[in-house]
Amino acid sequence: MSEYEIVDAKEGAELTDENTIRCLDKGFVRLVDVMGDDSSVVQAARVSYGKGTKSVREDKRLINYLMKHRHTSPFEMVEFKFHCKMPIFVARQWIRHRTASVNELSGRYSVMKDEVWEPSPSDLRKQSQLNKQCSTQETVGEPHASKIIQEFKEDQRRLFEHYNSYLESGIAREIARANLPLSTYTEWYWKIDLHNLFHFLELRLAPEAQREIRVYAEAISEFVKRKCPLSWEAFEEHSLNGVRFSRSEIAILRSVIKENWLMDKIEEMRLNQLKKEGLSDSSIRVELTELREKLTGERLNY
Amino acid sequence: MSEYEIVDAKEGAELTDENTIRCLDKGFVRLVDVMGDDSSVVQAARVSYGKGTKSVREDKRLINYLMKHRHTSPFEMVEFKFHCKMPIFVARQWIRHRTASVNELSGRYSVMKDEVWEPSPSDLRKQSQLNKQCSTQETVGEPHASKIIQEFKEDQRRLFEHYNSYLESGIAREIARANLPLSTYTEWYWKIDLHNLFHFLELRLAPEAQREIRVYAEAISEFVKRKCPLSWEAFEEHSLNGVRFSRSEIAILRSVIKENWLMDKIEEMRLNQLKKEGLSDSSIRVELTELREKLTGERLNY
Amino acid sequence: MSEYEIVDAKEGAELTDENTIRCLDKGFVRLVDVMGDDSSVVQAARVSYGKGTKSVREDKRLINYLMKHRHTSPFEMVEFKFHCKMPIFVARQWIRHRTASVNELSGRYSVMKDEVWEPSPSDLRKQSQLNKQCSTQETVGEPHASKIIQEFKEDQRRLFEHYNSYLESGIAREIARANLPLSTYTEWYWKIDLHNLFHFLELRLAPEAQREIRVYAEAISEFVKRKCPLSWEAFEEHSLNGVRFSRSEIAILRSVIKENWLMDKIEEMRLNQLKKEGLSDSSIRVELTELREKLTGERLNY
Amino acid sequence: MSEYEIVDAKEGAELTDENTIRCLDKGFVRLVDVMGDDSSVVQAARVSYGKGTKSVREDKRLINYLMKHRHTSPFEMVEFKFHCKMPIFVARQWIRHRTASVNELSGRYSVMKDEVWEPSPSDLRKQSQLNKQCSTQETVGEPHASKIIQEFKEDQRRLFEHYNSYLESGIAREIARANLPLSTYTEWYWKIDLHNLFHFLELRLAPEAQREIRVYAEAISEFVKRKCPLSWEAFEEHSLNGVRFSRSEIAILRSVIKENWLMDKIEEMRLNQLKKEGLSDSSIRVELTELREKLTGERLNY
Repeated sequence: MSEYEIVDAKEGAELTDENTIRCLDKGFVRLVDVMGDDSSVVQAARVSYGKGTKSVREDKRLINYLMKHRHTSPFEMVEFKFHCKMPIFVARQWIRHRTASVNELSGRYSVMKDEVWEPSPSDLRKQSQLNKQCSTQETVGEPHASKIIQEFKEDQRRLFEHYNSYLESGIAREIARANLPLSTYTEWYWKIDLHNLFHFLELRLAPEAQREIRVYAEAISEFVKRKCPLSWEAFEEHSLNGVRFSRSEIAILRSVIKENWLMDKIEEMRLNQLKKEGLSDSSIRVELTELREKLTGERLNY
Repeated sequence: MSEYEIVDAKEGAELTDENTIRCLDKGFVRLVDVMGDDSSVVQAARVSYGKGTKSVREDKRLINYLMKHRHTSPFEMVEFKFHCKMPIFVARQWIRHRTASVNELSGRYSVMKDEVWEPSPSDLRKQSQLNKQCSTQETVGEPHASKIIQEFKEDQRRLFEHYNSYLESGIAREIARANLPLSTYTEWYWKIDLHNLFHFLELRLAPEAQREIRVYAEAISEFVKRKCPLSWEAFEEHSLNGVRFSRSEIAILRSVIKENWLMDKIEEMRLNQLKKEGLSDSSIRVELTELREKLTGERLNY
Repeated sequence: MSEYEIVDAKEGAELTDENTIRCLDKGFVRLVDVMGDDSSVVQAARVSYGKGTKSVREDKRLINYLMKHRHTSPFEMVEFKFHCKMPIFVARQWIRHRTASVNELSGRYSVMKDEVWEPSPSDLRKQSQLNKQCSTQETVGEPHASKIIQEFKEDQRRLFEHYNSYLESGIAREIARANLPLSTYTEWYWKIDLHNLFHFLELRLAPEAQREIRVYAEAISEFVKRKCPLSWEAFEEHSLNGVRFSRSEIAILRSVIKENWLMDKIEEMRLNQLKKEGLSDSSIRVELTELREKLTGERLNY
Repeated sequence: MSEYEIVDAKEGAELTDENTIRCLDKGFVRLVDVMGDDSSVVQAARVSYGKGTKSVREDKRLINYLMKHRHTSPFEMVEFKFHCKMPIFVARQWIRHRTASVNELSGRYSVMKDEVWEPSPSDLRKQSQLNKQCSTQETVGEPHASKIIQEFKEDQRRLFEHYNSYLESGIAREIARANLPLSTYTEWYWKIDLHNLFHFLELRLAPEAQREIRVYAEAISEFVKRKCPLSWEAFEEHSLNGVRFSRSEIAILRSVIKENWLMDKIEEMRLNQLKKEGLSDSSIRVELTELREKLTGERLNY
C-alpha cells in the first residue's frame, strides 16, 4: 500500500459523500471550495515565459518540469479551502504550518461539545525504541488495552461533566475549558495554496508523521488528486517518492557506477522508460542528460 | 471625488469590459478568478462562534463587527486573482507587499516587448516641497513639458533599438535588458486574500501613494466592490475613511468634550444616525457605549 | 493602572531576575536574545531616505513619524527572541500569530512534565453576558470556588497518573498524552521582529484579550520598553492608546466641532502640548495641519 | 571550483574588509548584524526534545540530523542582517524572496545617484540555445563587445543627464526617475533568518541562477560559513550538493543495484566513510539503514 492511499475505514479515513472524508472516530475533511486547477498552474507559468516558450505545448510536461526544477510559484495559483474536524492534539501539529488561513472554533465564544477522540485497541501503539519521536506498528495487548480505553473514556466523561458544571456556576468559558483534554474535537476552516499544501503533505504523509494526522493528510490528498491530477502526479514523482542522496552518499554511488558498465545499463533502461511515456526525442535527450549529470556529478555542455 | 473612485479615462483607469479595467496608457487590471464572497467571510466567522452566537443573524452586521474589531482572519477566506500590466517602476512598489502570490513575465525567458509608459503633460507633476516623498497636483508647464515628453520617447526608442540589436548579436536576454528603462511595461498574475488586499488598498489608495500605482488600486477596488460589497462597505467605514487620533490628540478632544454639553449632542446625533440605519435597540446600545468609551477614555461596565 | 503595566505578582507576572519575568503560577517569559534597538529602526529608515532627508535629525522624531504614518518596515529590523512557558490553552491562542518562529517542546519526543496551571479563586471569573467572548472582573464566590479548585487539582493529578501508567505500559508518548488537560504547561523559543511583536501586543494587551495571555503580553512589553524605549513610546502614543473613529462617527464629530469655537480651542491646546514637548516650529506646523485635516476632513494644501 | 566559492575579484566579488564583500563593479554585501550562531540552532532544537533526548550530545551530529530530516524550524532561530548594493535588475530577482525584511532606498524620497552597472567584455555572455532561461559561458567577441559597452555607457550617461535636468525643472522625483535604466544601483537593508537564507542560497547559488545575482549569493555564503560553520556544512552536505532522484529514476537505480553485488560494495564504502568521520557505532547503524532504505525502497524495521 502506498503511503498516500486512503486507509481503510476502520483504520482511519472513510469516503462518505463526494466532498467529505471521515477521519478517525469523529473527525472529517470536507472540501469547501477550490480556485483553479492544473490549467491555472500552466496559465501562471506561461506569463513568466511570455512569448519565449510557446514551444512548451503540453500541460503535463510543463507541470512536470516546474515540479522537477522547483519552480514553485505557479502552484501557488491554486487555492483549496477545507472544513476539518480533528482532536486538539492533531490540530496542534497542524497549526504549525503557518502559510494557511485558519478560522477555528473558539472555546471562549462557544461551549465546547462533548466530542472526544476515543482510542480503539489498534490505536494503542507502542513507543519506538530507535526513533524517539515515533510509535511502532505494534500495539499494547490485553489486558492493558481494555483497561486503558476504559480509563480514557471515564476521564473524558468526568472532565466534560465538570466542564459543564463550571459553566452552570457561571464561570467564563475561557476558564472552564482549561482542564478539557487534548483529545477534545475542534474544527476549523483551513485555506491554503497548492504549493504550500504540497509542503504540508510531504511532511504529514511521511512515515514519521503521527498516524492520527497522517489520516487527515491522506484525505486531503484524495481531493488534490481529483482536482489537480497532473500536479499531484508530478508531486508524487518528484517530491513524495523522490529520493535525495547527500553529497557523501552520491559520491559513493558515482564512484561505483563510474567504474562499471552500469551507466550504460541505467541509461538504456531510462531511455525505454521515457519512450514508453511517449516523450519527444528532444525531451528524452534533456532527461537523459540530466540523469547523466546526476550520476557523474559533471555539468554537461548541452 | 472620493479617492477610490475610478478616475476618468484620460486621467488613468478606464472600464473596457466586464473584467478588465485599463490603467495608465497601456496597462490594465483584469480579474481572473475569485474564490468566495461576503458569505465566505460570514461562514468562516461563524465556525469561530460555533453554537454560541446563532443570535448574530445579519451578515452585514457581522461583517461590520469583524472589520470594526479587527477580527481579520475571516477576510482571509476570500481570494482574488488578477492579471495586471504595469510599468516596472509601479511593479517595484507593488511587489513590496509580500503576502501575495506572483508570477511575473521574465526578462530572462522572454524578449521584452517595446511597450513603455509615456508621460502626458498632466503626468509631469512637480515635487512637493513639504512632503519629501510626494508630488503635488501642479504640473510643469510649457515649454518644459513638450521637451521632456519628447526626450522620454526618444530615450525609450533608442534603448529598445539597442536592446534589440544586442539580442541580434546573440547576447543573452538577461544581459541585454540591463539598460531597459523603469518605464518598460511588465505583467503578472497576482493572487491575494481579501484581508491582505485591504491592507494593500489602504496604503495604495492613500493620497500619499504615487498616483501611478493609485490608479491600479482604484481599479482593484472596483472589483472588490462588485464581488464583496458588504466587506467593501465595512472597509470604507472603518479603515479607509476612519480617522485615528493619537493619545495626545484624543486627550485634548476628551477634555474639550467633557467640559461641555457636547457629549449629549454627539450622542444624540449618533443615535439618529444608527436609527436611520435600522439597527436593533441592543445594537444601538452597544454602539453608543463604544462611542462613549472612546470619548471619555473610560471602560464602561456593560 | 495602565493596561501594559506589570501586574502584581499574586495577580500574574513578577520580575525575578533581569531577564526573566514569571507569569501565572508556573510560567515565565525569558528574554534570550535581541538584535538591534531603536537605532536599528532609524538606520533602516535612513536607507530609504538616502541623501534626501539628512534634515530629519532626531531619532525620536523619526521613530514617532514612522509609527504615526504606519511606515512599519523599519521596525522589522529589530528581532526579539524569548523562552516562554505557558499552559497549552494560552499557547493555542499565542500560536495563531503566524509571523514568528517557534520551537516548542514536543509531546512526541519528550515525556510531559506534571506541571499544570492551577486556578486560584481570583482566576474563576464569571462569563460576561454582553460580550460573548469575554469574562468579567467578577469571580465565582464560595462555596463554588473551593470545590472547583479542588476538582481541578484532582482531575489533573489523575490524568497525569494515568499518563505515566500508559508510558509504563510501553504506549507511545504521542498516544499517551491524548488525554492530558489544556492546563498542562508547555514551553517554546519564540522569535519575532518588533513590527510583528507590536501587532501581537496590540491584540493581546487589549482588554478583550483573555487575562491569562495578557499577563504574558505585559511581561513581553516590559522587555520591549527596556530595549527599545523610543519605539515603545511611539507605539503607546499611536497604536496602543490611539483611538480610531469610523467614518460615521468622525462625520458627527466634525459637524459638531465645525459649527463651534471648539476648533480654535483644540488647536490652542495642541499647540501648547507640542511646545511643551520642545518641537521645532516647522514640526509644530505639520502636526497642527494634520490635526486640522482630521477634524475638518479636508486635505489642506501645505 | 565549487559553485559557492568566492569568485575572483575581476569576476565578481572581492573581500575588502572583514564585514564587506564587494560585488560586481560598484556593489557590495555588508554584514550588519547577526543574532545567534550554530549553538542557537542546537538550543532551539533541544527545547523540542526536552528531557527525552539528552543523549543527543554532539552539536554537529544534531545539526546534521536536523538538516537531513528537514527539521527546519531551529534554523529560523538565527537571524542575519545585511546592507547590500546592487543593480535594480538584480534587486528585482532578489525581492521575490518574500520571507525577508527589506528597507530599500526610495526613488521618491531621494535623488538617485548616477551609479550604474557597466558591463565588461566578460559580462557579455551569449544566450543559451538549450535553456531558454540561461546564458552560456561564451561571450560576444569583438568588434561587438566594445561597441555595446560604449553604447551602454552613453545611454546611461544621457539618461542621468536627462534625469537631473528634469529634477531641475521641478519635476517630482517619482516621475523623473521613470526612464532610469535597470542597471542603476539601488541599496537596501535585508534581514532574514538562516532557514530562509538557505532557501535563497539554494536557488541563487544554482548554476541556473543569473551570474550577476549568484555573485551576491556567494558573498552572503561567505558570511554564513564564518558565523555558522556547522550549519553551513550540513547545508552543503544535504541541500547544496545533495542529489534528488525522481521515483522513475530511483526505480531504475534500485533494480540495477538489487540484482548485483553492488549493494554490498556501496555499503562497505559508506561504512568506511562514516568510520573516518568518527561516528559512534549506533549512529553508523542508523546511517547505513537509511541508505539501504533509499537503495531498496523498503522501510526497514529498526
